[in-house]
Amino acid sequence: MKQSKLFYKTKKEDSKQTDALSHALLTKAGFIDQLSAGIYTFLPLGLKVLKKIEEIIRQEMKAVRGQEILMPALNPKENWNQTGRWESFDVLFKVQGANKKDYALAPTHEEIISPLAKKVILSYKDLPLYLFQIQTKFRNELRAKSGILRTREFLMKDLYSFHTDEEDLEKYYSKVAESYTKIFNRLGIESFKTFASGGNFSKYSHEYQTLTEAGEDIIYICNNCKIAINKEIKGEFKKCPECGKPDFREEKASEVGNIFKLGTKYSLPFDLKFTNKNGEEKPVIMGCYGIGLTRVLGTIVEVNHDDKGIVWPKEVAPFDIHLLEISESAGKIYKELEDEGFGVLYDDRQDKSAGEKFAEADLIGIPLRIVVSSKTLEKDSVEIKRRNKEKLELVKIKDLVKYLKS
Amino acid sequence: MKQSKLFYKTKKEDSKQTDALSHALLTKAGFIDQLSAGIYTFLPLGLKVLKKIEEIIRQEMKAVRGQEILMPALNPKENWNQTGRWESFDVLFKVQGANKKDYALAPTHEEIISPLAKKVILSYKDLPLYLFQIQTKFRNELRAKSGILRTREFLMKDLYSFHTDEEDLEKYYSKVAESYTKIFNRLGIESFKTFASGGNFSKYSHEYQTLTEAGEDIIYICNNCKIAINKEIKGEFKKCPECGKPDFREEKASEVGNIFKLGTKYSLPFDLKFTNKNGEEKPVIMGCYGIGLTRVLGTIVEVNHDDKGIVWPKEVAPFDIHLLEISESAGKIYKELEDEGFGVLYDDRQDKSAGEKFAEADLIGIPLRIVVSSKTLEKDSVEIKRRNKEKLELVKIKDLVKYLKS
Repeated sequence: MKQSKLFYKTKKEDSKQTDALSHALLTKAGFIDQLSAGIYTFLPLGLKVLKKIEEIIRQEMKAVRGQEILMPALNPKENWNQTGRWESFDVLFKVQGANKKDYALAPTHEEIISPLAKKVILSYKDLPLYLFQIQTKFRNELRAKSGILRTREFLMKDLYSFHTDEEDLEKYYSKVAESYTKIFNRLGIESFKTFASGGNFSKYSHEYQTLTEAGEDIIYICNNCKIAINKEIKGEFKKCPECGKPDFREEKASEVGNIFKLGTKYSLPFDLKFTNKNGEEKPVIMGCYGIGLTRVLGTIVEVNHDDKGIVWPKEVAPFDIHLLEISESAGKIYKELEDEGFGVLYDDRQDKSAGEKFAEADLIGIPLRIVVSSKTLEKDSVEIKRRNKEKLELVKIKDLVKYLKS
Repeated sequence: MKQSKLFYKTKKEDSKQTDALSHALLTKAGFIDQLSAGIYTFLPLGLKVLKKIEEIIRQEMKAVRGQEILMPALNPKENWNQTGRWESFDVLFKVQGANKKDYALAPTHEEIISPLAKKVILSYKDLPLYLFQIQTKFRNELRAKSGILRTREFLMKDLYSFHTDEEDLEKYYSKVAESYTKIFNRLGIESFKTFASGGNFSKYSHEYQTLTEAGEDIIYICNNCKIAINKEIKGEFKKCPECGKPDFREEKASEVGNIFKLGTKYSLPFDLKFTNKNGEEKPVIMGCYGIGLTRVLGTIVEVNHDDKGIVWPKEVAPFDIHLLEISESAGKIYKELEDEGFGVLYDDRQDKSAGEKFAEADLIGIPLRIVVSSKTLEKDSVEIKRRNKEKLELVKIKDLVKYLKS
């Protein structure tokens, strides 16, 4: 993509909203645009990152045998009445249609997926079953805060599992727990599996918490085994539930995912049951597993930046290479790199100084910067710098593709 | 994908909602599930088709240099007040937040993209600009009808273009018109470019209409040049606006896309202007171009089915191959075909008769059916049948991949 054509505009000024650095950096670098408090547009750069996050999560959900579906945001009131959450869910957007019917804008989909699963699940042969979606959700927050970490509208992955018994749920729950660790590592945000309150079925649920000053949670991390405990339930724990040692440190963190044993909480109100091997009817045992993609995007920036700008982890970077032309055209190299399959942002702008181009490349944060200038061309070379390293390297143009692929 | 694991359930009964065959067939074959009138869940089969439609449209939007962004569904009332459409738009869902702010659930995004573009467009050098999104939209219909052809929540592609003058808009408008013809051909739904009312800037807009009894529109097609005219404006036209001949036929059709010259309708209220080469400020000239993906999916089924079920066009089929095992395992062939990169639905179910499997394969409508049975294995062969042909063919297993790739 030629940067002269890219729809974005970096801002000279820092954003006024200072409670989350990710908001400021993503806005300043032209990845997102705030429409209203807690409501954002993803500009081309931001959407590219969001799509990469989405694809990583989709791959890993398929690896744990999740089948992708897409449920609607508009949910009939009756479904939410069935569980009592029409009244009790604290951040439910409610809207009335011209048909005088009331709808919720779904912040989660247990009320939809349980009666849906009931249409297919009859016997133990239909279980286990794993369904996920990547879908836009809504939360009627009184106050939006922390930039894109807590918004009124956001993209979320929610996986739901259905089992014959608790043992099977337990096995799958562990599998998803491993999957989550893998996902957050791929996304460039180390996360701590954190004990949290569990509702009435299970004593605990688990959150995945990434350390950042912008986070809303306080967690206690075991210095021995890296398991963490959310402050909300810390009182109970004198010792680490994993290793038994009493040695914790307190940290601020952002919840990027959670996994939850639902048990029969939703299968009972929706009469979701199956016939077991003995011909008896039993309620289906459920689990649910969420990751907030929009919040992940913000958290990646919270933990991957320096004083010059964003430092994108390779797997989620909007482009592989930022190609800067200084005084001499880099058009031929641009074409060659694109033909070789690299994603290249080509700074072909004629009205920007070298200094402006360098500063903006650091702000945008693409992993690899390649500079073409009269100075490098004198040596038939380009200058290469990684965003997260200081070292500058001259590489012969004829060796460039080989160098990049090695 | 093993069919024994696929989340779906074909229905024996026909759907009660009979005003659109696509609704009945897609529900019966397990592609979609109606949650409430005009509100649907896409099951794995349906979502696969929707994603293929999405990818075709995305490719063609990039081919006309569109940059993809993602705007929010929650729109502040102020944006819609700015154009007067908070009051005048007839199917606007309105919702109040806990913060006492009013929001619209966007059915279209001129009110958002115009002030967004204003942040980037300063001079003629920033034009032309083409932005699109593929995003969930809402319409507060009094009555939902025609199954998934007219819903309260739906996926839509909307492209917006920004120009210095009408001539440039005209050029791009023609380019998108060609792109739309290509898109609908790829999607397997021949469409007629149809003159429709144009608002106050341009005398006419154009709709893309696909002939189907389930359609809500009446169009008049020129028997000479295939241009059509919507009944709403037909009165003016004694002769075809393209070829001048007065020879029309009347047809029922479904509007799958539209293209619209907006002119300054939205740039004026949002003060979206640019500085031209002479240093003068001028309003930006806009166009907009929509395709309803959910409706396209329904329309594909309306025009591609027979009395046994759906007949998916190749490019949007949920799988390439439906592999039926009758009495003998087809597991080895399944693995080989998947390894070769084919998308295969493998009917491995042990509790279904051959007759049930054949009937369901016809209902689901995957383009190519491969049967493995003791009869075919006697000849070291499989039986191949295309969904849209009657002919059965025996192909040696050792030649199968070569046959499929030829």
